[in-house]
Amino acid sequence: MTYAVIAAGGIGSRMGNMEKPKQYLKIKDKPIIVHTVEKFFVNSKFRKVIILCPDQWVNYTKELLAKYLPENDKVLVLKGGSTRNETIMNSIRYIEETDGLDDETIIVTHDAVRPFVSARIIDENIEAALKYGATDTVVPATDTIVESQNGETISSIPDRSKLYQGQTPQAFKAKLLKELYYSLTEEEKDILTDACKIFSMKGYDVHMIDGEVHNIKITYPYDLRVAKALLDEEL
Amino acid sequence: MTYAVIAAGGIGSRMGNMEKPKQYLKIKDKPIIVHTVEKFFVNSKFRKVIILCPDQWVNYTKELLAKYLPENDKVLVLKGGSTRNETIMNSIRYIEETDGLDDETIIVTHDAVRPFVSARIIDENIEAALKYGATDTVVPATDTIVESQNGETISSIPDRSKLYQGQTPQAFKAKLLKELYYSLTEEEKDILTDACKIFSMKGYDVHMIDGEVHNIKITYPYDLRVAKALLDEEL
Repeated sequence: MTYAVIAAGGIGSRMGNMEKPKQYLKIKDKPIIVHTVEKFFVNSKFRKVIILCPDQWVNYTKELLAKYLPENDKVLVLKGGSTRNETIMNSIRYIEETDGLDDETIIVTHDAVRPFVSARIIDENIEAALKYGATDTVVPATDTIVESQNGETISSIPDRSKLYQGQTPQAFKAKLLKELYYSLTEEEKDILTDACKIFSMKGYDVHMIDGEVHNIKITYPYDLRVAKALLDEEL
Repeated sequence: MTYAVIAAGGIGSRMGNMEKPKQYLKIKDKPIIVHTVEKFFVNSKFRKVIILCPDQWVNYTKELLAKYLPENDKVLVLKGGSTRNETIMNSIRYIEETDGLDDETIIVTHDAVRPFVSARIIDENIEAALKYGATDTVVPATDTIVESQNGETISSIPDRSKLYQGQTPQAFKAKLLKELYYSLTEEEKDILTDACKIFSMKGYDVHMIDGEVHNIKITYPYDLRVAKALLDEEL
């Protein structure tokens, strides 16, 4: 069984003085998080769409989704954890308690603030996660990436042709991710903040799915203007 | 003396079926390259603004700049080289022949397709190049960067806090860059396609200048829509 896990945990500190985390800002007629959830809600492969957000926003999010989505028992809102991975673990715990976990339980994790994800990207993540265990959605790096150890001068410029920018979704065999996560030391947990990195560090292949340039993450006010422009022209 | 070197050599293959390289597309009332050149033209620190473009576009570019800029002898158009670095060398050759090169000859190289560069970024590049010899304009990496050796699975996920996305300008002491470039083997020239990488590989510090999120490079049709939206709201 396959589950969508929408991480809406960000407090949005990079958005400037906003009263609400950025996933609740409207673009066109709907909050960003609603645009995102809809992409998974309409996909019949998902048994549930689990949204995880900060405790104080759980009720608000529930009301919002009730307002914009048809009545259903497919979408639910849970409290997130203190880190991205703890948030994902909360979703796995819920799945385990309600449906149980087996080797074919797939979670497709996604940022609430990436509303432009396509059906093609979602489907390829599900398929590849079943086959390979873990996936990451990426696009070839367009900018030159430079590395700096001291934050002032460049220490190295890696070969761009080998580099990709990570987007989401990331999809995983939930049982395997849980086992790998609970095998980590506290120190490892601090470092391996990206679930794909856990697989990668533990020697598992993470299969790459072709992302799309416009599958943007709305992080800065700038992105919000871009998102509005994209919606104007594309939807 | 300080020179702006605007590289307009791209043939724009990533823009889809366009009749013109992307630097000639209009956003709002003017071609992108005109927006870019203006940022340097108005800055009194530059003795000349040298635009380098493919041979077959030299005359067109000259006519375009004559049409949009006031009559002047500050802006000139030259033929670019077969690579980015060869293009830069053409500009250094011109400077050497007309004014001579000394240790304080600074070139501020910039992409023709980054029209949103700010005066602050340009000024900091000039200042730091004089002081340190080489600069690169960067922003902290917002996306997770992943590395793949085979293009299918992730080989490593470097620590994002040490990574930056390179923009332009890049500024250099022209005499030093020339010396370093002509000390390279043909094989090194093939690898060191970024002039900053030449300094870095030869053991020179490249000083980082804080870029800006909206100092975007117009590479894809998507970027062109973004650029139009930015101009609508900001200029």
